[in-house]
Amino acid sequence: MEDKDNRLLHKIKSPEDLRKLNVDQLPALCSEIREFLIENLSENPGHFASSMGAVDLIVALHYVFDTPVDRLVWDVGHQAYAHKILTGRKEDFKNQRKLGGISGFPNPMESAADTFMAGHAGNSISAGLGMAIADMNTPGNENRKTVAIIGDASISGGLAFEGLNNASNNPNNLLIILNDNDMSIGSNVGALHSYLSDLTTSAGYNRLRNKVAVYLKKTGALTENRRRALIRLGNSIKSVVSKKQNIFEGLNIRYFGPFDGHDVKKLVKILSDIKEMKGPRLLHLYTTKGKGFPAAEENPSVWHAPGKFNPATGERISSSSAKKAPLWQEVFGETLVNLAKNDDRIVGVTAAMPDGTSLSRLFEVMPERSYDVGISEGHAVTFAAGMASAGKHPFVAIYSSFLQRAYDNIIHDVAIQGLPVTFCIDRAGLVGEDGVTHHGFFDLSYLGCIPGLTIAAPSDADTLSDLMFTSLSFNNPFAIRYPRGECRGFSGFHEPAKLEIGKGKTIKKSGNSRVAIASLGPIIQNALDASEKLAADGVNVDIYDFIWLKPIDENLLRELAQNYEAIVTIEDGILSGGFGSAVNDFIKNEGLTVKTVSLGIPDKWVPHGSVKELQAICGYDADGIAEAIKETLKKL
Amino acid sequence: MEDKDNRLLHKIKSPEDLRKLNVDQLPALCSEIREFLIENLSENPGHFASSMGAVDLIVALHYVFDTPVDRLVWDVGHQAYAHKILTGRKEDFKNQRKLGGISGFPNPMESAADTFMAGHAGNSISAGLGMAIADMNTPGNENRKTVAIIGDASISGGLAFEGLNNASNNPNNLLIILNDNDMSIGSNVGALHSYLSDLTTSAGYNRLRNKVAVYLKKTGALTENRRRALIRLGNSIKSVVSKKQNIFEGLNIRYFGPFDGHDVKKLVKILSDIKEMKGPRLLHLYTTKGKGFPAAEENPSVWHAPGKFNPATGERISSSSAKKAPLWQEVFGETLVNLAKNDDRIVGVTAAMPDGTSLSRLFEVMPERSYDVGISEGHAVTFAAGMASAGKHPFVAIYSSFLQRAYDNIIHDVAIQGLPVTFCIDRAGLVGEDGVTHHGFFDLSYLGCIPGLTIAAPSDADTLSDLMFTSLSFNNPFAIRYPRGECRGFSGFHEPAKLEIGKGKTIKKSGNSRVAIASLGPIIQNALDASEKLAADGVNVDIYDFIWLKPIDENLLRELAQNYEAIVTIEDGILSGGFGSAVNDFIKNEGLTVKTVSLGIPDKWVPHGSVKELQAICGYDADGIAEAIKETLKKL
Repeated sequence: MEDKDNRLLHKIKSPEDLRKLNVDQLPALCSEIREFLIENLSENPGHFASSMGAVDLIVALHYVFDTPVDRLVWDVGHQAYAHKILTGRKEDFKNQRKLGGISGFPNPMESAADTFMAGHAGNSISAGLGMAIADMNTPGNENRKTVAIIGDASISGGLAFEGLNNASNNPNNLLIILNDNDMSIGSNVGALHSYLSDLTTSAGYNRLRNKVAVYLKKTGALTENRRRALIRLGNSIKSVVSKKQNIFEGLNIRYFGPFDGHDVKKLVKILSDIKEMKGPRLLHLYTTKGKGFPAAEENPSVWHAPGKFNPATGERISSSSAKKAPLWQEVFGETLVNLAKNDDRIVGVTAAMPDGTSLSRLFEVMPERSYDVGISEGHAVTFAAGMASAGKHPFVAIYSSFLQRAYDNIIHDVAIQGLPVTFCIDRAGLVGEDGVTHHGFFDLSYLGCIPGLTIAAPSDADTLSDLMFTSLSFNNPFAIRYPRGECRGFSGFHEPAKLEIGKGKTIKKSGNSRVAIASLGPIIQNALDASEKLAADGVNVDIYDFIWLKPIDENLLRELAQNYEAIVTIEDGILSGGFGSAVNDFIKNEGLTVKTVSLGIPDKWVPHGSVKELQAICGYDADGIAEAIKETLKKL
Repeated sequence: MEDKDNRLLHKIKSPEDLRKLNVDQLPALCSEIREFLIENLSENPGHFASSMGAVDLIVALHYVFDTPVDRLVWDVGHQAYAHKILTGRKEDFKNQRKLGGISGFPNPMESAADTFMAGHAGNSISAGLGMAIADMNTPGNENRKTVAIIGDASISGGLAFEGLNNASNNPNNLLIILNDNDMSIGSNVGALHSYLSDLTTSAGYNRLRNKVAVYLKKTGALTENRRRALIRLGNSIKSVVSKKQNIFEGLNIRYFGPFDGHDVKKLVKILSDIKEMKGPRLLHLYTTKGKGFPAAEENPSVWHAPGKFNPATGERISSSSAKKAPLWQEVFGETLVNLAKNDDRIVGVTAAMPDGTSLSRLFEVMPERSYDVGISEGHAVTFAAGMASAGKHPFVAIYSSFLQRAYDNIIHDVAIQGLPVTFCIDRAGLVGEDGVTHHGFFDLSYLGCIPGLTIAAPSDADTLSDLMFTSLSFNNPFAIRYPRGECRGFSGFHEPAKLEIGKGKTIKKSGNSRVAIASLGPIIQNALDASEKLAADGVNVDIYDFIWLKPIDENLLRELAQNYEAIVTIEDGILSGGFGSAVNDFIKNEGLTVKTVSLGIPDKWVPHGSVKELQAICGYDADGIAEAIKETLKKL
C-alpha cells in the first residue's frame, strides 16, 4: 500500500478536488474509498453493503456533474456514505450516527451537498422533479442539473410511481438513476421487481431487433407517421423477447441501460453522454451490494448493517455484553406463530420489513399465510383490510415512522369500517442512531384521534402477547406499539391471557406518596429506576402502568386524581395529542383538579444518538423523571 | 313510454331478479335506470355524469357475476348509483346523501352488496386483492370471484400502482376493470393518462401485428423458449405503433381491451368469457361520462355534480337563494393570484382538485406556475418540497381528508427540513352530504403534533388572505385550514396585511361575563349566534378568535384563565389532539385552574347530512353551544 499522504482520497476536500483527477485515476480512488469504508465501518458500525455497492456511481456522479450546483437527490440515503466522504465530511465520518456527529442519512441541515432529506424510501423522484422544474423556471438556474438516485426496492413504492407518472407532465430535464442491486433490506417483491430482473435475460434480442427493423422497412410498414414510434422499437422488441414491456418508456421517460454500475470509467462516459440531453431520462445500472468485500457480496442481507467486524478476515464481532432478553420484535414474531397455530384467520402482512419486525418467523413456519408487499405501506394496510373484510384477521407489522405512509389507509380502509386488523407497530418512540427520520414520534397522536381504534402499549413481553391474543377476540381495529431493542422482564413464552380492554395496572403503591407516575409502555423502566433514585433521597413515588392509550383507564385516573396531589405522565412519544394530552383532557372534562406534569418528546425534532442520550435530552430518562418529580413536589 | 308497472326495473329487488332477465332485455333496463337517475338526481342532487356513464357496466357485472357472493369493489364510488338501485336500494334512493338516508358512496354498513368502503380514490385494487387472496385460502370460498372497478384517474395514484405491482405476487384470480372515461373530477394528468389515450390511436396495428408474427415464424425466430412470450406480441406491437408500451402486461397482469363500455350485451359476453380465467386480469373499457343525457355528455365537468336541473330540457336550476358571499375556496384562489403577481417565488400545486380548490384561478392567469399532479397527494407534497428547496414558495391546495394521504410527506419532506410550503387545506371540518369519508375531521390533530409547523384557521376572508400573505415572509412550513362553503363577512378583496404569528383577537368583551368562548376558525359564527340566543336569556358571554392552533396564543389564554371562571373551546374538528386539547395542555402545564369545556367532533364517526344537522349532532351548532354554556354556568 502506498504512503497515506500520497493517496488520492487524502487530497479530496470537495467535489472540485475530485474533478481535477484524470479519469484513469478514478478506479484507484474507488478502491481507496472502499478501504476507508471498511476501515471505518468495521469499527463504527453503519450501513455497509449498500454503501460499498454505490461507490463507483457516486464517484462518477461527482466527477461528471458540477455538484453542489448540480443537485444530487438521494433516496433512503444509507448508500450515500461515499457522497459524504467526497463532500467534506471525511474527517467527521468516524462520528457518524453518534450524538453530535454526522447523520447516517443525507440531511440538508448537515451539508449543502445534501439537497434533500432522505430516510423514507421513494421520495427522490418527486423531490428531484420539483427541483428540476423550479430551476428551469428560475432566472440564472436554468442550467443546473438534477439527478435523482433511487434503488430497485424504493421504486416499487407508490410515491416513486407518482413521481414517474408525473415526470413527463411538465418540461424538465430530470435524470433518474435506478441503482438496481436486486436486493432491498429484506427481499424484493412485486411485479416491477421481476420486470427489472427479466429486462436483459435474453441475449439474442439485439439480433432479433435488427431483423424486425429490416423487415418493417422492406414491407413499407415504416411510414413517416411511425418514424418517431420506431425510435422505441428496440425496447419494444426487447420486451417481447423478455416477456415484459418497458414500463418507463410507457411512462414517457427515456430509458438507458442496463449497464454495469461498477465500471467507473464507463459510467463517466455514459453520464457525460446523457448529461445535457433534454427531457426526463432514466439510467438503469446494475450494482452488487457489498462490492469489494467478499463476505458482504456473498451475504448482503447480513451485511446490510453488520455491526463491528474484522476488516481483514470479514469476521463479524458480536457485541461484548451478551443479550439479556429477546428483542420486542422477537416476542411479536414468536407470539404470532403461536397464535396462528390455533387460529386459521390469522395472516401476517408487512411492507419490506420481515426481518426488522420478525414477521420472518411466520414466513418460516407458514409462508402461505405471510405477505410481504414491498415498500408499499399504504397497500399493505388496504390489502390487510381487504383480507379482514373477507374473514381473515391480519396482523400488520410496520415501523412507527413508516406507518405514516399508510395514515389514510388506516382511517379510510380499516377504522371507518371497524375491520379486525391488528397493527403491530415496531420502532415506536425514540430509535437512537437512525435519527430524526426514523424516530417513532407521532403514532400515539395520529392514531389517538381516530374513532373506534383501540391503542395499547405493553411494558413487558407477557403483556405484548396478551394484547395480541386479546385483539383476536375483540374483532375491531387494534394497534399495539412497542420500541426497538430488548424487551426487559422476559420469562419465557407463556400462554397468552385475555386482558380487560382499557384497564391499567398498579405497579408500586406505598400509601404515602403525594405523586403518582402514570406511565404508558416500556418507558416505565425509567420510572422504576427514577423511583429508586428518589427512594435514596427519601422520596416515595407510586407507579401505574396504564397499558392503554385508548380507551384510557378512566377509573384509575379518577382514583389517582383523588389519592394524589399530582400525576406525572410518561410516554415515549411526542406530547401533543399523546398520552399526557389524553390524561389532561380527561382531568379537565371531568372537572378534576389534580395537578399534572407531562413527560415525553417535546415539540422539537430529536437528532440521532443513543436512545439513552436522546431520552436524557428529552427529559424522560430516569434522572429527568426524578428531577421532574422533585420539581413537582416543590410546587405542591 | 310503457306503463310503469310493466317496466323491467320495477321488478328488480335484487341482483337475482336481474339475472332472470334475458340478455336482450338488458339494453332496455339500462335505459330505464338512466331515466330513473335523471328523474331522481334532477330533484335530489348527486353525482350525475359518472353515474350515467357506468350504468351498462354495472348491469353487466351483476348479470354475469353471482353478487353479492361474488364481490364487486368500487373505487371512489360516486359512479355506483346503478349498483345501489339494483341491490335493493331503489326506494331509498330519493333520500341519498340526506341525514338518515343512504350514502352517496358505497358503504358496507349500508348493504352487504357494498363490499368495501369507497370515497378516497385508488383503494379498490388493494382491497380486492386482499379479498381475492383471502377467499382462495378460505375453505368454501375458493370459487367466490372478486372484481375491482377503478377509473382512469384513480389508477394514476400511488396506492393503485402498489396494488397493481402486488397483483401478481401471490396466486389470485382478481379481475380489475378499468372504467376509462378520460376524465376525472378536474382533468386527467400524467403519463399513464396519455398512455391510456394512445393505446388504440392506430387503426392499423392489427394488420401490422399479423405481418410481424408471420415473419417471425418464417425466420425461425419463434423458438419454443419464446412461445409464451409471443402471447403478448400483439400488445407489444401495438405499443410500438402507439408509441407506448403496455404497462399492465409489464406488471404481469393479463390485459384485455379496450372495449366499448356501453354495449351491455357485448360486455356480458366479454365478462362471461374472462370470468373463470385464472390469474390477475385487467379489462379496459371506454365509457362516456353523462352517457344518455346530451347536456352532460357535452360538458361532463359541469355535470359531475350539477345540482338540480330540468330533466326535460337539461337546464340547470340555480339554488333559489342567491349566493351572499364568495366561497372560501374562491377567496383562496383569488388571493393566490394577487399574491403571485407580486412574488415570483409563488407556485400553486394541487392533486386533481383545481376546480374544487379554485387553484383553477391561478391556472387561468399563470398556467406556467400552476401544477396539477393528478390523484397523487403524496407526490404533490414532496414535489412542492422539492420546489421549495430550490427557491420557490409553493401553495399546496388539497382537501383535509385527502391530505391524509400525504401525511408522511408533510412530516418527512417538508417539516423536518423546515421548508417554506404553505398548505391551504380546503374542506376542513364537517363537509355535509359527502359524509364520513370526506369530513375533514383530523387535520388539527395530525398536524398539531408536528414540530415546526405553524397552523392557523381564519374566521373571515380578510384573515385568510392575511394568513396567506404572512406565510410568505415567515418562510417555514405553514398550514391554513378552512371549510367548504360560503365565507361569511366578505367585504371585497383587500390589500393583505402581515399578521403577528400566534396572536388571537378579542371579538366580544362585555366586562361581566363569567365564561369566555375560545374559538378557532369560522365556527365562531355559531358562537356569535349562541351569544345572541344567550343574551335573550340575560346571559352574557365573551368571545375570542384564536386564529392560531400553533403557536397557540399563550398570553391570551393566561388572560382568559385570570378573568373568567371557565373557557369554552369551539373547533370544527375532532376533539382528541385538537384545539381544545391544546388549550387543556397549556392550562395544565401552566398550573392554571380555570375550568374548561371542549366543543367539537366527539370520538365518533359522523354520517352524511347537511352541515347544520351534523353540527347539531356533534353539539356545536348555535343551540349546542348555548346549551353547553348554560350547563357550564350551572356548575360554576
